[in-house]
Amino acid sequence: MAEAKVLSGAGLRGQIAGQTSLSTVGKEGAGLTYRGYDVRDLADQVQFEEVAYLLLYGELPNKAQLQAYVTKLKGQRDLPQALKEVLERIPANAHPMDVMRTGCSMLGNLEPEESFEQQRDKADRLLAAFPAIMVYWYRFSHEGVRIDCTTDEDTLGGHFLALLHGKKPSELHVKVMNVSLILYAEHEFNASTFTARVCASTLSDIFSCVTGAIGSLRGPLHGGANEAAMDMIERWKSPEEARAGILGMLERKDKIMGFGHAIYSVSDPRNEVIKVWAKQLAEEVGDTVLYPVSVAVDETMWEQKKLFPNADFYHASAYHFMGIPTKLFTPIFVCSRVTGWTAHVFEQRANNRIIRPSAEYVGVEQRKVVPLAQR
Amino acid sequence: MAEAKVLSGAGLRGQIAGQTSLSTVGKEGAGLTYRGYDVRDLADQVQFEEVAYLLLYGELPNKAQLQAYVTKLKGQRDLPQALKEVLERIPANAHPMDVMRTGCSMLGNLEPEESFEQQRDKADRLLAAFPAIMVYWYRFSHEGVRIDCTTDEDTLGGHFLALLHGKKPSELHVKVMNVSLILYAEHEFNASTFTARVCASTLSDIFSCVTGAIGSLRGPLHGGANEAAMDMIERWKSPEEARAGILGMLERKDKIMGFGHAIYSVSDPRNEVIKVWAKQLAEEVGDTVLYPVSVAVDETMWEQKKLFPNADFYHASAYHFMGIPTKLFTPIFVCSRVTGWTAHVFEQRANNRIIRPSAEYVGVEQRKVVPLAQR
Repeated sequence: MAEAKVLSGAGLRGQIAGQTSLSTVGKEGAGLTYRGYDVRDLADQVQFEEVAYLLLYGELPNKAQLQAYVTKLKGQRDLPQALKEVLERIPANAHPMDVMRTGCSMLGNLEPEESFEQQRDKADRLLAAFPAIMVYWYRFSHEGVRIDCTTDEDTLGGHFLALLHGKKPSELHVKVMNVSLILYAEHEFNASTFTARVCASTLSDIFSCVTGAIGSLRGPLHGGANEAAMDMIERWKSPEEARAGILGMLERKDKIMGFGHAIYSVSDPRNEVIKVWAKQLAEEVGDTVLYPVSVAVDETMWEQKKLFPNADFYHASAYHFMGIPTKLFTPIFVCSRVTGWTAHVFEQRANNRIIRPSAEYVGVEQRKVVPLAQR
Repeated sequence: MAEAKVLSGAGLRGQIAGQTSLSTVGKEGAGLTYRGYDVRDLADQVQFEEVAYLLLYGELPNKAQLQAYVTKLKGQRDLPQALKEVLERIPANAHPMDVMRTGCSMLGNLEPEESFEQQRDKADRLLAAFPAIMVYWYRFSHEGVRIDCTTDEDTLGGHFLALLHGKKPSELHVKVMNVSLILYAEHEFNASTFTARVCASTLSDIFSCVTGAIGSLRGPLHGGANEAAMDMIERWKSPEEARAGILGMLERKDKIMGFGHAIYSVSDPRNEVIKVWAKQLAEEVGDTVLYPVSVAVDETMWEQKKLFPNADFYHASAYHFMGIPTKLFTPIFVCSRVTGWTAHVFEQRANNRIIRPSAEYVGVEQRKVVPLAQR
């Protein structure tokens, strides 16, 4: 074996582990781009299905392509009966990301990817089916309701809200879901995407890749920051209380979720987008607590630590204003990021070598087995 | 962002991605060691449960520890009713690794790891439960039988055979299963283990880590070589036919499974062990075809290409002689490797930094969004 090179940092930080055409993160003058487009422009000007198409098919669709794509996705939202029966067997107190992981894995048994030629269809299928996987389990286990998994909504975000609330969502809510799904769609070689690529590098099927990615996104160091932010801001009843609370947490060196970022150093480009929408939702519902509390936390963190809110922080109040239960925040992330994950799987497959690094051995020297009777 | 370093090879080959005390692979004078012990010594002198204990608890057990451990594992073999009902909903033509992945994921809903203090208990639970997950689905979907998931067998290998065949296995078969499970237990930073470590690095739960690892092991570049070897050797009815067949395949540059290894250059230390047992099993069942065919393939590959059989090649005939259906070969790998995977999860957690490499961007330059109507 050739001598292995020791990487400079733990966690492969700053190490190039492959190539991508999908996104840039933290590049000079462009916070986050998807295939060359600034995520802020996309959030402002297109719908999420256009972004999904961009990531999975390579270019933004024209009108006919978009219409065909929306129609295709709408036709694939329902779940097979066996999958519904599996979801019914998952208890209400399960971790919702365990539900998403299991739902994805089960679908792989029922509708396997039999050759890589099916990869785009399977990616579209997962994209279309995830809202129903999440909400079918949620409403069955929490409300005892077996929902109809289809709706008339054109957009994935509107479809999700309609499944969750059992009624047509407002235009504003559909718009915000659309923006949110765009912001979370893709983010280069983050841990869940890298999980999907390692799995893809063995030439495994796409359901295995996405199932693995969900498992990694579940970790509190990765997904879940918006849930943690919600749990925090819910505690405070006024901006003054929030300010005092944050100062206390900083003094105790508590971890404060939703601030700073491993790669962005000045600001998270996604924050400015979602913050505007959180404010608008606050006005719509007549909120006088949660949004002002959020702003107070934001300002105090900047004043005290020069730390900026990341994509997750204002997502917490935005989702809350739309009546989304906190435990579904990270599963929504899955509904969006599945586009980035599967696009990375395509890329890995197109130019593959199995991802198999080496380890530095720090264990005991070679030794002889001592017979059981003498141990 | 700091300038990222380009790795020398694709697939992180030869790059140190972390530390381990669990194994060495291809180190001078020692083909494969688990915590300092040569795998050949272990296969010769101990039972698989001792190896599992070694990997998960750090040292070989003494007699009292081993007895307690075997008792613990025996008590955890049965499956929750809801998991059985899920397995019953997976069709007979599903990929058995999809079944293992889904079974593991489902168990994570029913018996979640609520804190890392439970990690050893959860690892033991998975180890004890995997044979039943595999065989419950197999016999229900293929034979319409709802098996009792418990047996009196002390060893995991004997337990698996008893579940599969519905009768007490022979001493020889128990011995061979034991050896086989030891040989497959651990192999440093292979792709499935690395998947488990990436997932663990987000501080996700152990079921997510193992579910992801199963998905990666499913890939034909990783697990599955013993199944592919079986499919190949079954085609030939005599050593002469096999020799001619291999020569033809080499001429056509077909991929021949079960030979060579990414890291071992001279021989795979696991091969010499399993080959002896395959021969003994051939004698037991009075085989005059499969084993001689295997030897002819082995000799022809060496003569023509100086390629040696790896761990998988003689495993094919060995498993076949014990009446194991070919489609269960890779799931058996899961039953063994779960020890290595979970031991790596413990290690990653004990000294963690999230595994988040960078990518080299090779996509289009920044561009402006063209409105839908003008595309």
